[in-house]
Amino acid sequence: MSGNTFGTLFTVTTFGESHGPALGAIVDGCPPGLDLAEEDLQADLELRRTGTSRYTSQRREPDRARILSGVFEGRTTGTPIALLVENTDARSRDYEAIRDRFRPGHADYTYQQKYGLRDYRGGGRSSSRITVATVAAGAIARKYLRQRLGVEVAGYVSRIGPHELDCVDLPAARTNPLFCPDPGRLPELERYLDQLRRDGDSIGARVTAIGRRVPPGLGEPMFDRLDADIAFAMMGINAARAIEIGDGVAVAGQRGSEHRDELSPDGFLSNHSGGTLGGISTGQDLIVHVAFKPASSIRIPGRTIDVTGAPTTIVTTGRHDPCVGLRAVPIVEAMLLLVLMDHWLRHRAQCGDVVSATPDITRRR
Amino acid sequence: MSGNTFGTLFTVTTFGESHGPALGAIVDGCPPGLDLAEEDLQADLELRRTGTSRYTSQRREPDRARILSGVFEGRTTGTPIALLVENTDARSRDYEAIRDRFRPGHADYTYQQKYGLRDYRGGGRSSSRITVATVAAGAIARKYLRQRLGVEVAGYVSRIGPHELDCVDLPAARTNPLFCPDPGRLPELERYLDQLRRDGDSIGARVTAIGRRVPPGLGEPMFDRLDADIAFAMMGINAARAIEIGDGVAVAGQRGSEHRDELSPDGFLSNHSGGTLGGISTGQDLIVHVAFKPASSIRIPGRTIDVTGAPTTIVTTGRHDPCVGLRAVPIVEAMLLLVLMDHWLRHRAQCGDVVSATPDITRRR
Amino acid sequence: MSGNTFGTLFTVTTFGESHGPALGAIVDGCPPGLDLAEEDLQADLELRRTGTSRYTSQRREPDRARILSGVFEGRTTGTPIALLVENTDARSRDYEAIRDRFRPGHADYTYQQKYGLRDYRGGGRSSSRITVATVAAGAIARKYLRQRLGVEVAGYVSRIGPHELDCVDLPAARTNPLFCPDPGRLPELERYLDQLRRDGDSIGARVTAIGRRVPPGLGEPMFDRLDADIAFAMMGINAARAIEIGDGVAVAGQRGSEHRDELSPDGFLSNHSGGTLGGISTGQDLIVHVAFKPASSIRIPGRTIDVTGAPTTIVTTGRHDPCVGLRAVPIVEAMLLLVLMDHWLRHRAQCGDVVSATPDITRRR
Amino acid sequence: MSGNTFGTLFTVTTFGESHGPALGAIVDGCPPGLDLAEEDLQADLELRRTGTSRYTSQRREPDRARILSGVFEGRTTGTPIALLVENTDARSRDYEAIRDRFRPGHADYTYQQKYGLRDYRGGGRSSSRITVATVAAGAIARKYLRQRLGVEVAGYVSRIGPHELDCVDLPAARTNPLFCPDPGRLPELERYLDQLRRDGDSIGARVTAIGRRVPPGLGEPMFDRLDADIAFAMMGINAARAIEIGDGVAVAGQRGSEHRDELSPDGFLSNHSGGTLGGISTGQDLIVHVAFKPASSIRIPGRTIDVTGAPTTIVTTGRHDPCVGLRAVPIVEAMLLLVLMDHWLRHRAQCGDVVSATPDITRRR
Repeated sequence: MSGNTFGTLFTVTTFGESHGPALGAIVDGCPPGLDLAEEDLQADLELRRTGTSRYTSQRREPDRARILSGVFEGRTTGTPIALLVENTDARSRDYEAIRDRFRPGHADYTYQQKYGLRDYRGGGRSSSRITVATVAAGAIARKYLRQRLGVEVAGYVSRIGPHELDCVDLPAARTNPLFCPDPGRLPELERYLDQLRRDGDSIGARVTAIGRRVPPGLGEPMFDRLDADIAFAMMGINAARAIEIGDGVAVAGQRGSEHRDELSPDGFLSNHSGGTLGGISTGQDLIVHVAFKPASSIRIPGRTIDVTGAPTTIVTTGRHDPCVGLRAVPIVEAMLLLVLMDHWLRHRAQCGDVVSATPDITRRR
Repeated sequence: MSGNTFGTLFTVTTFGESHGPALGAIVDGCPPGLDLAEEDLQADLELRRTGTSRYTSQRREPDRARILSGVFEGRTTGTPIALLVENTDARSRDYEAIRDRFRPGHADYTYQQKYGLRDYRGGGRSSSRITVATVAAGAIARKYLRQRLGVEVAGYVSRIGPHELDCVDLPAARTNPLFCPDPGRLPELERYLDQLRRDGDSIGARVTAIGRRVPPGLGEPMFDRLDADIAFAMMGINAARAIEIGDGVAVAGQRGSEHRDELSPDGFLSNHSGGTLGGISTGQDLIVHVAFKPASSIRIPGRTIDVTGAPTTIVTTGRHDPCVGLRAVPIVEAMLLLVLMDHWLRHRAQCGDVVSATPDITRRR
Repeated sequence: MSGNTFGTLFTVTTFGESHGPALGAIVDGCPPGLDLAEEDLQADLELRRTGTSRYTSQRREPDRARILSGVFEGRTTGTPIALLVENTDARSRDYEAIRDRFRPGHADYTYQQKYGLRDYRGGGRSSSRITVATVAAGAIARKYLRQRLGVEVAGYVSRIGPHELDCVDLPAARTNPLFCPDPGRLPELERYLDQLRRDGDSIGARVTAIGRRVPPGLGEPMFDRLDADIAFAMMGINAARAIEIGDGVAVAGQRGSEHRDELSPDGFLSNHSGGTLGGISTGQDLIVHVAFKPASSIRIPGRTIDVTGAPTTIVTTGRHDPCVGLRAVPIVEAMLLLVLMDHWLRHRAQCGDVVSATPDITRRR
Repeated sequence: MSGNTFGTLFTVTTFGESHGPALGAIVDGCPPGLDLAEEDLQADLELRRTGTSRYTSQRREPDRARILSGVFEGRTTGTPIALLVENTDARSRDYEAIRDRFRPGHADYTYQQKYGLRDYRGGGRSSSRITVATVAAGAIARKYLRQRLGVEVAGYVSRIGPHELDCVDLPAARTNPLFCPDPGRLPELERYLDQLRRDGDSIGARVTAIGRRVPPGLGEPMFDRLDADIAFAMMGINAARAIEIGDGVAVAGQRGSEHRDELSPDGFLSNHSGGTLGGISTGQDLIVHVAFKPASSIRIPGRTIDVTGAPTTIVTTGRHDPCVGLRAVPIVEAMLLLVLMDHWLRHRAQCGDVVSATPDITRRR
């Protein structure tokens, strides 16, 4: 309840700071009997690792998650699964310069005003490094949802600054460092990002995630809607500034005759809604877009104040990402997986024995 | 936890269906000693009432909220405040035609698949009529936040289909039925909506809400961020499809040197972030945009299935809104008020005795 | 979260004061498809009604619960069930005398210190009248648990002051006003209580409740144990001062060789533990004892202070119970039912597809 | 929500099994600015360590808690505090004999039926070893409550089987291995326990804890009462079977004229209620008694079944406690501290600005 726990039944409670000895999470509520090993977490962790291309921070962390509890003889026991990831490449000396000054666009000033003190090293708790724990937790949800329900979640970068990217080849998005779903455009994007780095500047991006074979019926109708929990999850990712479901902001310009997704015995005839109606999954693809602001740590000097309130300027050195959105794909996927896992359990709790007289039209195809 | 309770400390639990005898809410956690009377709720309820212009549903409800508990001799006691609003103009006969068919774009199909049965009258629990309880609860939060902290929340319609609307006159938005902040454009908008009604169609819209004099420091840093809870709250409103904070989707195209809001002793030098950094309020204006899809109940026939899965068509009669977004302003305001109230209490719980050495730069102005 | 909601998945949020216009509850999370009518609530409400014998308060309330939502065509829909009970026999004039003075043994002083003000009429929110809402909610849980799982919960008064009562005839306990399970002792008990009333005094009591055919496996192992939630539920009833599970306080004097319940293929060979091991139900009878303090409202004058802190005395007039424990049986039953219902849903959420290789030894008999 | 998190605002989420690599907890919601070091946790951890006398399990663990996050430059930052305790003396070979058989009185059977599988080594998650994390978390609450509010919590063993122990010398209880508050009786108790070990048997016990200088006003009135949360917390400790507040089970035999605690300007004239009225703290001493069952692991053979349901017998070897109640004092203290800490924050959230016109009579003395 105190801000660092996600979920109602499948809960993830995280801890750790950018430059502390370790980060991690306790995953509670996982159904028992799931095959689980540390290797199952590693694929997702690799996707979010830094230092693997010149377009992300050069901090090099092995990002190996240890499982400290909740798994016995290779299967989950139903008790809490503790995940621990050690920090090995934290260089606190990089941050002495920001000890007494607030970086514009960062949480430095708000942490100071909320708590009266702050761990300034690498942004402390506000660093995107923290998401390593979330990604590891999401990998557990991924394994369960895939094995038991056939659900698949995949994301890609759908915009980098001025460059809109079509989803030409979804699987390919996982195999290039820009998570670009249109590999033919990689050279153009690389040139763009290289120029950006030379400028010492950064750029925003948009990530899109798709959830496939989500069962119909997930989501609580009033407040705890599936789409509301997705919005909550995504806006909780560092740098997110907009969440769209289905056609998103464009719906403000659509007519009802265009937007409403008609039904047929063979499924819906369109998917403008993005996979939910009334906050409950339809069985169609879940479609989520998240807009990420540009990184605020850039080499261009900025005006700011120091901790006493006096005016000063700042140039952020250290190891930073020119486009934080490029690293967000595995995090967006993890958050979507956590939401789906939680709502699957919630749905089973209340409606575990419901039988509908109406066929599931999305599974006929 | 079961989906119909909003908030952690200032909680609103709602009940009721479109065509049941009554709707209402239990507001728990309100601080004691607040002056409160039923009239305090009425201003906000009037703003969301239907039947008050030709651009909204012609259902006529007095929408008087009774306070059944939690107030003694004109002041809140700290115990639950129960709010009751009776339904008086429910015409269930309008809905017999949809008993066995699913309306496209509505929650009919998803409720059926989740619960195995549904209250088809007027959409049952999925009707936007339910929001009357939320608006009444929001009025309590508004009174507290205004009296104790000086916080003001105000919203307006910033887009109706193709018409983008500038905030020329914010107070005026509360005095016209379109919540339009640019009164000079009302004739044009009225012509547009009249044509839409003649077409038997509907249109999407965007609502913008602004929170003023929000104290810095509200929001929990990891998951329960202020902006994440705002996204959750807004996406939980019927027909919402996108949530933007500050510059919203546009941040995906911005450079860091443009986006990051620089600080000065006299406040921030811009507000691209929309009032939060790292999920915590900065003290600047909170800026939230919500995109609403067009109403799915239109007079144009649509393809669908019946409860057995057989194909059929439907024309939605009954009393409907051509632009549901026009009625969403008081609901968006209420949800923002509830989020701020809850986070104010959460902040006071953990940080009630914090003193920061850094001045609040947003209060100097 | 704010104190007036019980449960995690099957939640009951209550409101109301002793002398307000109405009391009630919102029951959220009920599975859909359960047959439910207002008459289903009435049997339990009748059991807790006052004014039906000379051994309880003479306040006469019809205690009819209206269902305002969540039920359609005789079945639960899965949406919130609102319950409303009007107060009709509230005589506030009885309480003017205590407006400025704190009754010893009551919550008057603690409410004053917590909230800075209090609804003094009939104890306000601290009155046991509030439990009418809990009892109505418990009746819903009772119907579900009986229909779907065969669970039965029954209670009785096992002690009235110096009189220990054996459970000679459990069904008979529901048919006499003292909830006495040994009807032959009724004349003796009535003489005792009549003398107590002549003395203007009150007496404590103990209530015992038994849960039969509870499935094994309910309860979360660490904090949210089944027995811990029972203890929480019971200690939350007005006037409760001790909770015992199984052999209760006597276990402090038992040896391991005596206490541990051995297992056989035909069930456990004893039930000292009271139906849980490690916080999880065994499938044996759940056995719970609750000790209730004597009513503090008695005709014997007591020393106290007034709202300014000055010493004074008080004699409590009004309509009171000589033994509040006598009215607690339906409340204890309701709380046990709510705990079981909630844990059944929680268990189904996490372990809905578990199959154990070990037979359920408690179901063989 | 999934069973392994305690508290609403000051939350403790624990993980770990008896024979896993490590145990620990994430403490969330701690106010910022508290001086905290690992040494602060050690005093309480020492009190619950095993292997320090012949009356407890001979398992030897250093029980050093590392702080992995949430503390910066010696002060809490307001972010999650992760605590890690490694297991170093786990001997899994001791437990091969119970792999296929259920120990009577243990959670072996209920875990099997709930989850379909279990970590049988040392009881897995149901081991009392898990409480090391709770005790470390409680030490944080102790430091805050002592520094900021002057609250002190102290416990002692008030009964060992047939031996009732008076609280002659409360501080002395912390200096002998039996937590006996009447040191003159130690030789007698040691003879009793030595004989019990020779018998291969175990014995129950009762622990009493006292909370001093608790502010009046803590606790929510309806369900989340201070005493209800204490009952929940205590019944959640391994082997607890009864919880008493104040006069406890004895209230069932008391008259109102005896029980009700009269008020005077100089405080209450007695404390039968044990420090709460209507679920809210009075400012008097909080008095809690917890009855613990005898350890079920004894050298006397017992009848049981194996995992297939066939009858068999068992003798529990391994390292066990003849009286688990002797080790429960620091755990009972920790749980009481956690409840008080959580309710302090909850109270501050809702009532942080309340001023009562009535003086606090318990602070005049």
